[in-house]
Amino acid sequence: MRVTFLGTGTSTGVPVVGCHCRVCTSSDPRNQRLRQSVKIEANGKHFLIDTTPDLRLQLLRHPIPRLDFVLYTHSHSDHLMGLDDIRPFNFRQREAIHAFASAPTAKAIRRAFAYIWDSSQIGGGKPQLVLHEVDGPFTHDGVDIVPLPVTHGDWTILGYRIGGFAYITDTNGIPDDTLRLLDGVDTLALDALRPAPRHPTHFTIDEAFAVAQRIGARETWLIHLAHEAEHGEVEARLPAGVRIAWDGLELDLE
Amino acid sequence: MRVTFLGTGTSTGVPVVGCHCRVCTSSDPRNQRLRQSVKIEANGKHFLIDTTPDLRLQLLRHPIPRLDFVLYTHSHSDHLMGLDDIRPFNFRQREAIHAFASAPTAKAIRRAFAYIWDSSQIGGGKPQLVLHEVDGPFTHDGVDIVPLPVTHGDWTILGYRIGGFAYITDTNGIPDDTLRLLDGVDTLALDALRPAPRHPTHFTIDEAFAVAQRIGARETWLIHLAHEAEHGEVEARLPAGVRIAWDGLELDLE
Repeated sequence: MRVTFLGTGTSTGVPVVGCHCRVCTSSDPRNQRLRQSVKIEANGKHFLIDTTPDLRLQLLRHPIPRLDFVLYTHSHSDHLMGLDDIRPFNFRQREAIHAFASAPTAKAIRRAFAYIWDSSQIGGGKPQLVLHEVDGPFTHDGVDIVPLPVTHGDWTILGYRIGGFAYITDTNGIPDDTLRLLDGVDTLALDALRPAPRHPTHFTIDEAFAVAQRIGARETWLIHLAHEAEHGEVEARLPAGVRIAWDGLELDLE
Repeated sequence: MRVTFLGTGTSTGVPVVGCHCRVCTSSDPRNQRLRQSVKIEANGKHFLIDTTPDLRLQLLRHPIPRLDFVLYTHSHSDHLMGLDDIRPFNFRQREAIHAFASAPTAKAIRRAFAYIWDSSQIGGGKPQLVLHEVDGPFTHDGVDIVPLPVTHGDWTILGYRIGGFAYITDTNGIPDDTLRLLDGVDTLALDALRPAPRHPTHFTIDEAFAVAQRIGARETWLIHLAHEAEHGEVEARLPAGVRIAWDGLELDLE
């Protein structure tokens, strides 16, 4: 399995438009973060977690030969609004793309992208999506997928576990039932917005680190960072086994 | 008045993700097109026409000191889905941004970005937008704006005229009433998808040229191009007064 981090930034991306802070003006490419997403190659299949507004740019930087399916974590704009950009795969593959989401996320996708299911829009083509609601582990295209319910403010959203890899973005709390689903995980990607202050829907770096210790993966990669986090500085004070992800990071996993 | 073309491409952008055609692999930067949008500076105000999925990248390339308002042409994804990225201006200006759209477009925006008007989403902040429905000429922030109803397949969408500049994207027909609103226009930006074949919702290059002749602007810039249009080749066969726009093109107008 190969995991490629297409974006590792919070909802505004980094740099933030119009911001002149030292991180937003940093020349370290690890401080330039598109919106949070990964592509995964497993069992010969290629799939995405989320479709960010940066999806087109992300797939130009990191091409995939085909798109087999999409897993959605939740419907916030920074995770959803690039959905229209799956169309080139529909055109080329001449088939609909399967997507998987919780029931509330599926409902929000149907509302935001209502035209996909309308008969009203002619012309350049619409995304062809087969949207499945999931409420437990499932297998698709031979890939075993375990949804991981986590708290994101007043929402419950999904992380995903695929084999030894778990991906948990946008969270400020992991329920005990979900911690049990993380037993024996080897590599973890985990939301860590910034050093401080605390946030009502995201872990800080320290909060993420505490949870990462409890989960005990061999390797934890912190994701979804904001411009308060300077890559080198934050990473320098992290203990062994916990690192900060960056756009373009590739992990080759069992 | 200064008009900057933030994107001059069709809905997929150029290059198209995964495409290896000669235009998509061209090294001529004029063949690299983000989604169709302009920013305009007039009367000391800064405004956008549409909020594309590329909005963040477009404003990093072409910064504006503040965002005063947005004019929407229609609600297709390539013109709308970057709306969440106005948030840095809300944060910095500590105010809502005004936006203007036809009634059907406003309805579609309220559906696709329903969370803006919900009380359900806490956390990182939502766009603050004051959405106005327009059905005729109006003045905002001292800028006189004339909506230009045009045909886009089975929809009627809006172009906009500001003084001597008219902007008409996504059209395959301009009604006579709208042609009258274009009387005396100096500079025209006009949809021209590709040389061929014809398209049910967009002008071809030749169709756009014929309409441009009828409108008779001093200067016409063709926009919203697809990967069937190689910049240099298409421009070489255009008559005087008609040119192909490119990302980053700036026009200083009266």
